[in-house]
Amino acid sequence: MTLGSKIWINGALDDGLATPIGPSDRGFTLGDGLFETMLWTGTHIRFVDDHMARLMRSAAALGLELPLPVAEVQAGLNALANDAKGQMAAIRLTLSRGAGPRGLSIAAATSPLIIATIAPFEPHDAPAHLTTVSIKRNCGAPSARFKTLSYIDNTMALEEAKAKGGDHGIMYGTTGYVACATSANIIVAHKGRILTPAVEDGALAGIVRGRLLAAGLIQEAAIDAHMLATCDHCFLTNALIGIGNVATIDGRTLRPNGDLAGRLGEALLTS
Amino acid sequence: MTLGSKIWINGALDDGLATPIGPSDRGFTLGDGLFETMLWTGTHIRFVDDHMARLMRSAAALGLELPLPVAEVQAGLNALANDAKGQMAAIRLTLSRGAGPRGLSIAAATSPLIIATIAPFEPHDAPAHLTTVSIKRNCGAPSARFKTLSYIDNTMALEEAKAKGGDHGIMYGTTGYVACATSANIIVAHKGRILTPAVEDGALAGIVRGRLLAAGLIQEAAIDAHMLATCDHCFLTNALIGIGNVATIDGRTLRPNGDLAGRLGEALLTS
Repeated sequence: MTLGSKIWINGALDDGLATPIGPSDRGFTLGDGLFETMLWTGTHIRFVDDHMARLMRSAAALGLELPLPVAEVQAGLNALANDAKGQMAAIRLTLSRGAGPRGLSIAAATSPLIIATIAPFEPHDAPAHLTTVSIKRNCGAPSARFKTLSYIDNTMALEEAKAKGGDHGIMYGTTGYVACATSANIIVAHKGRILTPAVEDGALAGIVRGRLLAAGLIQEAAIDAHMLATCDHCFLTNALIGIGNVATIDGRTLRPNGDLAGRLGEALLTS
Repeated sequence: MTLGSKIWINGALDDGLATPIGPSDRGFTLGDGLFETMLWTGTHIRFVDDHMARLMRSAAALGLELPLPVAEVQAGLNALANDAKGQMAAIRLTLSRGAGPRGLSIAAATSPLIIATIAPFEPHDAPAHLTTVSIKRNCGAPSARFKTLSYIDNTMALEEAKAKGGDHGIMYGTTGYVACATSANIIVAHKGRILTPAVEDGALAGIVRGRLLAAGLIQEAAIDAHMLATCDHCFLTNALIGIGNVATIDGRTLRPNGDLAGRLGEALLTS
């Protein structure tokens, strides 16, 4: 059976043919929901507790409720990954506010939908080429603070980066400082400090980023265009790539730093 | 048959039970699509050409394609409205980029999905209470420039407004000026001028707003907090309400101005 032919919906594994996503689902109509992308290592979901904690925290902030207890969701994710024993895979967990009447207003009667899908994942170790894009992250707004289904700005920012020859876009926040890459957090080594943009400047509170902050290996800072243009090294982090090397920023070649990458990577080995 | 029990999908009327929106549909996973909300007057769709033109223009900007010719889409909308002869209804047309592989990147193979739904609509003539909210419109970004499915900022802004006692939120743009209401454009009468925020300041290029601009009845201007706090009259516009009166802004009572509302409304009578 091809990995990804099954999905998990509201507590049950399914062949994915009889989808419950209707045309009035607010995830579809209004981007009204959240998601998590997780790495299945072949034996377990890396940082699953961190992912579930972030999902619950974000859901609470948006007035969304999980239709099932967290333990049941985690059991469902593991059941979904049962076909991927011994191989890496990407699991996506999507929480939508569910079907609702016309209009923006959140109706009390809306019943949320939770869906998980799985896809093969191959680590891509080639250092990344980053390109600054014009589209900004909306600092302080739900679309930037939480990993919501409203992803059009990052999506089009990636297209802008690709059109300019990059693999990932670097997005500034509306505060004027670097926020993140289009689908990863960003870390820069600048004058001996290992820095990452603050949530206030538009960074998503990424799981790997959070681990590195908690380990004291990186610190939050406002990163401006000059710092980006003069940093010594740069890394991308997200749940799938872990810590990824960056080859160039806007065409400027960066020296690799395997020692630093290794030091940061060690903080992720505990899970 | 209850109005709204049928939907129109990719060229055919359907009972809505066998929905083609799968868990990998980018409208659902990433808010990657567009929508239009239109007024069915009981006999025809008001401003249908304006709506279709905006949809096509926005789709071109986002690299989205309609899976059907515009004429066929319009015929489908009319067929959907056939059950609503003689009564007003709201038609929502949603264009999603369709199912795609994992990740943000727009795959060439994605085949778009176009869906229309219809719901009863009752005009709500009571003047509105507007409340300024903290969530900003991301000026210049796709989420603010186009009517995309990535609507979480406006959705949560409306919740913020309702929590403060308002019917609609007033959103500022990240440029620092008033942008729009949470689901309407805004017009203010200030020192004898009839003004509306510019697209550059986060306003959506609304259909009614566009008609009033084209008729020379309103003009674009940067509207700051002081102007909002001292304006004489205020109106909301969108495709469903047309021109709506505003009773209060942040608790300040505004005098109604039936003459002005009537004058603006006349510009809409030609369609």
